[in-house]
Amino acid sequence: MKMFNKVVIIGTGLIGGSLGLALKKQHLAGRVIGFSRQQKNARLAKRAGAIDEIGVSLDAVVDADLVVLATPIDTIIDFALKIEKKIKKSCIVIDVGSSKENIVSRLSTAIPGFIGCHPLAGSEKKGAANIKPDLFKGSLCVLTPVKQTDKHSLHKIKLLWKKMGAKVIVCTPLKHDQILAFTSHLPHAVAFSLMGAVPVEFLHISSGGLNDSTRISASDANLWSQIFLSNRKHLLPAISSFQKKLIELKLALDKKDKAVLTKILESAKKKREKLG
Amino acid sequence: MKMFNKVVIIGTGLIGGSLGLALKKQHLAGRVIGFSRQQKNARLAKRAGAIDEIGVSLDAVVDADLVVLATPIDTIIDFALKIEKKIKKSCIVIDVGSSKENIVSRLSTAIPGFIGCHPLAGSEKKGAANIKPDLFKGSLCVLTPVKQTDKHSLHKIKLLWKKMGAKVIVCTPLKHDQILAFTSHLPHAVAFSLMGAVPVEFLHISSGGLNDSTRISASDANLWSQIFLSNRKHLLPAISSFQKKLIELKLALDKKDKAVLTKILESAKKKREKLG
Repeated sequence: MKMFNKVVIIGTGLIGGSLGLALKKQHLAGRVIGFSRQQKNARLAKRAGAIDEIGVSLDAVVDADLVVLATPIDTIIDFALKIEKKIKKSCIVIDVGSSKENIVSRLSTAIPGFIGCHPLAGSEKKGAANIKPDLFKGSLCVLTPVKQTDKHSLHKIKLLWKKMGAKVIVCTPLKHDQILAFTSHLPHAVAFSLMGAVPVEFLHISSGGLNDSTRISASDANLWSQIFLSNRKHLLPAISSFQKKLIELKLALDKKDKAVLTKILESAKKKREKLG
Repeated sequence: MKMFNKVVIIGTGLIGGSLGLALKKQHLAGRVIGFSRQQKNARLAKRAGAIDEIGVSLDAVVDADLVVLATPIDTIIDFALKIEKKIKKSCIVIDVGSSKENIVSRLSTAIPGFIGCHPLAGSEKKGAANIKPDLFKGSLCVLTPVKQTDKHSLHKIKLLWKKMGAKVIVCTPLKHDQILAFTSHLPHAVAFSLMGAVPVEFLHISSGGLNDSTRISASDANLWSQIFLSNRKHLLPAISSFQKKLIELKLALDKKDKAVLTKILESAKKKREKLG
C-alpha cells in the first residue's frame, strides 16, 4: 500500500539509498527522486533501484509528500532551509542525523511536518555501494518529536520505520543526545583513539579482540568528526566519565590491587551481559 | 601420525580442552590425561573426547612426553614447579599463558624442554563447555624461545601448532609482552572501562558499535585481572599512550578544531584498514 506519492531523498548514501530501496521494494512510494553531492553515488542508487530519477533541481520538492534529509550532519539544516519555502504544507520532512537537539530545535518551528529521526543502522561501510533493502530490519530507530510536532505526521513516520523493520523508540532530542553520546559517539571516540595508540608494527600479532573493538574506527573520518562536533556538549562529559573509569582501572593495576581490579572488571562484565 | 605417546593437560578449559580434542581427533597423541580445578570442567572435557582420563595425582606426568600448562596465568609457575622434579628428561612442557616474560624466565632454566606458547585463540566464552577441535584453525600462536631453549623441542612444538591449524610466530618473551600489551591487554582494559562508563539505563538505545567494541568486556573478570597484573609493566605504559591519544581527540573536540579532529580520525582509520 502506497504511503507517499512522491518522495525526495537528499543524500543517496547508505541510509538514504537503503530507505529509498526499501520504499520501492515495498511499493510504499510512487516516485522517488534522489539527490547526491557525488554524481557517482546518485547513479549507483539509481542502478540499485533505490531511486527512480536523479534530481536536477531542488524544485523537485515542490509537490513531494515526503522529503528525507540524509546528507552528512553538517549540511542537514542548510538543505532544510533551502527547501523550507518550496515544500507544500502537508509535506513531511525527516532527517536521519546522529544527533538531534540542534537540528530539531532549528527545524521543528520552521517546518510544520518535520520529524527528527535517527535510524541506528549506520556502518563503517558507507556510501551508495553498500545500499541494501533490509538495512533497517531488526535495527532501532529513534524519533524525537517535540511539543509542536504534528501528531499525524509523527504517526505516519512511526509506521514508515516499522515497515522498514525497525523497532521505533520515541524520546526527547535532549535525552537522545545524552544517550547516544555514551552508546555510540563515545565508543567511536574510544575506538579511534585505541587504533591511534597501537604501533603499526605491532598489528601483525593481534586477534579478534583488537579487531572487534576497533571495527568502528574504519568509519568515515569526515562524517564522524561532524557527528562528534554536533554532539560535543554531551560527548565531552561522556569522554570524561570514561577517562575516570580507565583511571580507576589503571590505579588498581598500578597498586597491584587484584581485588579492586577484579571488582571493576566483574562490574563491567555484568553490565555487558545485559547488552546481550 | 602420533607425535606424543602420553600427554598430560593441566587445565582442561577452552584452550587446554580444545588442544586435547584436536590432538585426539588427529591421532597425534596416544593417551591424554586431563586435570582441572573444577571437576565439572574435567568431566565435560572427558565427555567431549578431549581427554581419555581424568587425572588423579600429578604423578601422572612421570612418563609423559608432553605436559600442557593451561591453567589461569597466576598458577602456571606453581604447577610447573610441582611437576618439574617428576617429569622425565625428554618431556616437553608448554604453557599457553597470555604474557611470557615472567613465566619463560622462571621456567626455561628449571625445565630443559620448556617452550613458552601463546595461542591467540581465547574468547570471552571460556571453559570446557566451549571446547572445539578447530579452535586454533586460522589463529596465531606465538612461541617465545630463549637462548637455552632446546631446538628439537622447539621444532616439535612448532609442528604441533601448525597441525592445530595455527600460524606460528616466533619472538622474544619481551617483544611478545610489549606487543600484546597494545594489541590484546589494552583493548580489554579499554573495553572494560567503556562498559563501566555507559549508564545501564542507556543500554536500550545502542547498536552494533557499542556491541562490537565491548564484546571482550564479557570476558572472565578473574582471568583478566590476572593477565593485566602479569603484564603490568608493559600494560601501564600502553594505557598511558592510549590516554594521550584520547586527550588529543578530546582537545580538538573541545576547541571545535574540525581539521585536527578529522586528521586524528583519518589516521586511525588508515591504520585500521591495515588490520584488515
